[in-house]
Amino acid sequence: MCKACDYTIHGAQHHFGWDNSLPPALRAEPGSTILFHCQDSSAGQLGPSSTLADVQALDFGRINPVSGPIFVEGARPGDALKVTIESFTPQAFDGRGFGWTANIPGFGLLADQFPDPALNVWSYDPASLAPALWGKEARVPLKPFAGTIGNAPAEAGHHSVVPPRRVGGNLDIRDLAAGTTLYLPVEVEGALFSVGDTHAAQGDGEVCGTAIESPMDVVLTLDVVKGANLKTPRFTTPGPVTRHLDAKGYEVTTGIGPDLMSGARDAVSNMVDLLCAQRGISAVDAYMLCSVCGDLRISEIVDMPNWVVSFYFPRCVFE
Amino acid sequence: MCKACDYTIHGAQHHFGWDNSLPPALRAEPGSTILFHCQDSSAGQLGPSSTLADVQALDFGRINPVSGPIFVEGARPGDALKVTIESFTPQAFDGRGFGWTANIPGFGLLADQFPDPALNVWSYDPASLAPALWGKEARVPLKPFAGTIGNAPAEAGHHSVVPPRRVGGNLDIRDLAAGTTLYLPVEVEGALFSVGDTHAAQGDGEVCGTAIESPMDVVLTLDVVKGANLKTPRFTTPGPVTRHLDAKGYEVTTGIGPDLMSGARDAVSNMVDLLCAQRGISAVDAYMLCSVCGDLRISEIVDMPNWVVSFYFPRCVFE
Repeated sequence: MCKACDYTIHGAQHHFGWDNSLPPALRAEPGSTILFHCQDSSAGQLGPSSTLADVQALDFGRINPVSGPIFVEGARPGDALKVTIESFTPQAFDGRGFGWTANIPGFGLLADQFPDPALNVWSYDPASLAPALWGKEARVPLKPFAGTIGNAPAEAGHHSVVPPRRVGGNLDIRDLAAGTTLYLPVEVEGALFSVGDTHAAQGDGEVCGTAIESPMDVVLTLDVVKGANLKTPRFTTPGPVTRHLDAKGYEVTTGIGPDLMSGARDAVSNMVDLLCAQRGISAVDAYMLCSVCGDLRISEIVDMPNWVVSFYFPRCVFE
Repeated sequence: MCKACDYTIHGAQHHFGWDNSLPPALRAEPGSTILFHCQDSSAGQLGPSSTLADVQALDFGRINPVSGPIFVEGARPGDALKVTIESFTPQAFDGRGFGWTANIPGFGLLADQFPDPALNVWSYDPASLAPALWGKEARVPLKPFAGTIGNAPAEAGHHSVVPPRRVGGNLDIRDLAAGTTLYLPVEVEGALFSVGDTHAAQGDGEVCGTAIESPMDVVLTLDVVKGANLKTPRFTTPGPVTRHLDAKGYEVTTGIGPDLMSGARDAVSNMVDLLCAQRGISAVDAYMLCSVCGDLRISEIVDMPNWVVSFYFPRCVFE
């Protein structure tokens, strides 16, 4: 329950994919604060007792439900929807927060190197959000955010939820966390805003394709900025964005060459090798750990013809 | 003077480009600590009183001198050179630290949008390294590092200093700062290590092509890790890497699409527009400021077919 909220969008009020002909779940005045009960990105197909067989049986037609859409009165094409991200509350299962991270065949930055499915089920304290244990050795700091957050596109018809677009969507930006203000381009009357795909933690890149996928309650305030004419989403963070990760520094690997995608792949692949050698963990475990807490950065993009992409793995995870 | 150093490499002991036939400036035992007097990346062509005309007259045959090479005894192909980065001391001009940032036509991520040369000359306190003033409004936090640091490549002949390679070189990695340990692949006997291109500050990406280019004295300890068989450089930071920048949070713009380079260009271009609108500064000033303190990050690289590149500009610069 959200005492300060004007409306509640329940778990059943979700949709799969984007389509500006979907009827609004709610019409809200600008300035409304709304509680969204968001399902996890498997729409409940995976739970605390799931196994690898459940990953193999996933119905991809039911991936990434988003809660909404919200018709915001007065929002018109050319405006921006201002989304104040108020809070995230993980939904508890027997008092525990639940999350899953999977390697899904055919999906992820190193899909060719990791053809087999893999699954890690996380259990964490939903109140303290203390770092979540991975096996006996690793502890991953948590910082909840919404992976998918956006408006309906102007183009008619059904659009896959997987790719993000200029109106937002599956942005998977780790810093769209509580306290951040997000501005999204509006392409249709009312904006038709939806949110979902809540994550308990993710690194920049989401390299294996999944984060710590957790169902959460999300509180947002929606407002309209007239005539903003944004080209793409932008956001403002009120403070630091990596202090949950950075206290012990980083192990960093690099990829160097004329193609940023190859550089990113090399940097992550080199980190998988390093973590296997240093920590004695399996390659797929290293890959999934990289996805939930390691960051892809572009160190330089100007020293022709070779760019440097670096992958930063926080040392606190093993210390 | 470096009391704990075993050797000093003076400013004149530099070379332009990489060539494994260059005679070593020094033969050193593993474990040696060496002071390098590094010139700035213009090799002294630009100084505290330089103007735009000096940028236009730059001799590119004398760009990016590196100090060395150092033949490290016992280093052989397949080993790694372990470089412990001890300290940076800006060289003072009348008691002040000096740096320059330029937009050099034809160079930089948005070279097509910024065809005209531009120059900012910085003056800062070389002892305190307090944030450097840009005009009356902006203050850029400083964190010195070596932009170019590497070993000679195995391939014979002269190689341009501009592109970085798997043996290192013009990596322009912002976090190769004091306290970091860097591991570089060795491709030739003795490694033939050189360093230069010292920067007082730079953001991830170095988007306009230059940082705060400052001559500095650098102290490094060189060691050999036998049989490391590194594919590319890697490094370990002892602690946080962005706390000089992050206290007030960030303004963030995005680029979304199937090409990381286009995404990076869009994200930076959108930030230039935002800074111009919010701060009333010129576009080229915004572009150069982005280069010295803003960071390019890959937010997601898995939501086919569209990736998200984000540009993070630290709000502390204007607060």
